[in-house]
Amino acid sequence: MNSKVTPWEVQGEVDYDKLIQEFGTKKIDKTLKEKLLNKMKEGPNMISRDFFFSHRDLDIVLKDHTEGKGFFLYTGRGPSGQMHLGHVIPLLFTKYLQDAFDVNLYIQITDDEKFLYNRERTWNEIKKNSEDNIRNIAALGFNPNKTFIFRDSEYIKNIYPLILKTARKITFSTAKAVFGFTNETSIGMINYPASQIVPTFFEKKRCLIPSAIDQDPYWRIQRDIAETLGYYKTAAIHSKFFPPLTGVSGKMSSSIKESAVWLTDDEKTVKKKINKYAFSGGKETVEEHRKKGGEVSVDVSFQWLDIFFEPDDKRLKEIKEEYTSGSMLTGELKEILIGKVNTFLEKHREAVEKVDVEAYLYKGKLAKEMWDKNYE
Amino acid sequence: MNSKVTPWEVQGEVDYDKLIQEFGTKKIDKTLKEKLLNKMKEGPNMISRDFFFSHRDLDIVLKDHTEGKGFFLYTGRGPSGQMHLGHVIPLLFTKYLQDAFDVNLYIQITDDEKFLYNRERTWNEIKKNSEDNIRNIAALGFNPNKTFIFRDSEYIKNIYPLILKTARKITFSTAKAVFGFTNETSIGMINYPASQIVPTFFEKKRCLIPSAIDQDPYWRIQRDIAETLGYYKTAAIHSKFFPPLTGVSGKMSSSIKESAVWLTDDEKTVKKKINKYAFSGGKETVEEHRKKGGEVSVDVSFQWLDIFFEPDDKRLKEIKEEYTSGSMLTGELKEILIGKVNTFLEKHREAVEKVDVEAYLYKGKLAKEMWDKNYE
Repeated sequence: MNSKVTPWEVQGEVDYDKLIQEFGTKKIDKTLKEKLLNKMKEGPNMISRDFFFSHRDLDIVLKDHTEGKGFFLYTGRGPSGQMHLGHVIPLLFTKYLQDAFDVNLYIQITDDEKFLYNRERTWNEIKKNSEDNIRNIAALGFNPNKTFIFRDSEYIKNIYPLILKTARKITFSTAKAVFGFTNETSIGMINYPASQIVPTFFEKKRCLIPSAIDQDPYWRIQRDIAETLGYYKTAAIHSKFFPPLTGVSGKMSSSIKESAVWLTDDEKTVKKKINKYAFSGGKETVEEHRKKGGEVSVDVSFQWLDIFFEPDDKRLKEIKEEYTSGSMLTGELKEILIGKVNTFLEKHREAVEKVDVEAYLYKGKLAKEMWDKNYE
Repeated sequence: MNSKVTPWEVQGEVDYDKLIQEFGTKKIDKTLKEKLLNKMKEGPNMISRDFFFSHRDLDIVLKDHTEGKGFFLYTGRGPSGQMHLGHVIPLLFTKYLQDAFDVNLYIQITDDEKFLYNRERTWNEIKKNSEDNIRNIAALGFNPNKTFIFRDSEYIKNIYPLILKTARKITFSTAKAVFGFTNETSIGMINYPASQIVPTFFEKKRCLIPSAIDQDPYWRIQRDIAETLGYYKTAAIHSKFFPPLTGVSGKMSSSIKESAVWLTDDEKTVKKKINKYAFSGGKETVEEHRKKGGEVSVDVSFQWLDIFFEPDDKRLKEIKEEYTSGSMLTGELKEILIGKVNTFLEKHREAVEKVDVEAYLYKGKLAKEMWDKNYE
């Protein structure tokens, strides 16, 4: 099956090595891996197990860090609906990076993009989603004095001239080539890339963007124009896609409800969903499974453990061996994942209840500084 | 010579009747003229002498007024540099309309457009121009409690969602067809029309836009989408172009310095400019002129008197007769205009010194109301 990867669509089984070539990025090599693993206390597995696998200028960012020049992190979230695990995992990786390097982090809520993208959506819907999403993101535990979460529609007053400056540098033919715009694309959508590029200019340091690789086209344009505007080319660190329950190809999608585990799913729902929908690499009958064993490369439950939910390498190896040999059945593998997911969600919902959202939006040290700045 | 009329370019001798057909607007007929003349205390000549000659839905606006539904006025200024007489005259007409109908008026300072349009311009340049232009516009004497002058870059915080809503309705193919955008146009410029359309939605009444006819394309798009967004199709009243000193074709241009009289030109400069550059319909020698007379239709000095500087119909007729018969020489005709222009500029500069700009921007009744509003 052919695959298709754009910032708005991921289809089919993705060949990540091919994507590195197509996009012109670099694989995270052994040296870079070691440098990251030396620093990261949480989530090193996301590097060592190649979930984050590709980058642009990560080497320069780490050099800047070593030399004391510093860098900053930038990521975002499109508030198209409620959030699922596929949204949270790259954000958590970003938090781990922030903790490891003690740097500022900007989280853009692209309410403008999500409103423009879908001509049926109302602004009230977007506002509600934004509020919900911001609360869930803030609950992930970013440093409240070094993290600024902002809605595009609200922060535009501080950055509009810089958006214009950016938009003036990008021709329609460039935008069309990179994003595949057509004659039917709205003029707002055509201009949107400028909004997503501007936060890479928030500091006169190098910016590092953790995101799934489908967002890379934005950074390609940024890198073409940044220096002519007096800023640095942004760096990026790219993840693979967090697979939907329904199979390891494509990415977890908000529009196919059963493909995702939502942050609001209760224990029973999680159990039911994983048991019913999680694509299994096991065999059709217990007998056959015991004899031939399961296949972890296509088993979504195993993939989720591998990507995030089983950080212990030794334990993961055991699970792999037991499942592959057939001594562990699909139901048992799923049981392990269900437990992990429910523990995670319970802890998350407690954090959501307690989190001080205002710190990230307005009152923390970085947020306060940002509301006092005007970018021209 | 062929003519070309777009919002950014006016070239050649314009056939206004043809333009009405091309643009699909209507001529201001006798009935409408009378209705306007009945109301207007100042500047009725700009109607009676056909400087404002074309419209869209002006009849409905006047009906709405009679029926007590009301309407509002909207016009704008692109702060590309200092202002000349060609910029001021449509604004004065707008003031006369405001006085005649006692309605709210919104004046948009399109700093975003002017920055996007010219890739060499700095934002500081635009800011300086905006400040200068706003002061000059405010000095024209609009009702300070019913007039809101706003910079796009500053008011965007109150209207961004409505800009998105508007931009979402306009496809690239529409914008391309109307404005002639190409692959080299910047994505910012492509999105700009949304900013210029939004003020037509400031009130749930019909909007009337006085402007030179080259701005009409914006209103065509507005009229296509307004009702689907729950607003009225805007009405418009169109003027011809205020001719440059150098000849009655084209329009007074900021880029050709000698073609314009600037609001900052002192008495001597005005005298020198008009004497040197004002294209004359007079004959080459005094003898020939005395014998054959001058031609007012190509004489810029006469045209300026006709459009604005000689409101007295009787006196204008005398001048026309004397000049056409040859009893008035070009130098004498120019002397009359020089006197009128200098009186106007002197009075204007006094007003500029005294004007309370803040009332129009922030402190007047309408301005205050507008800063409290958020358009979604």
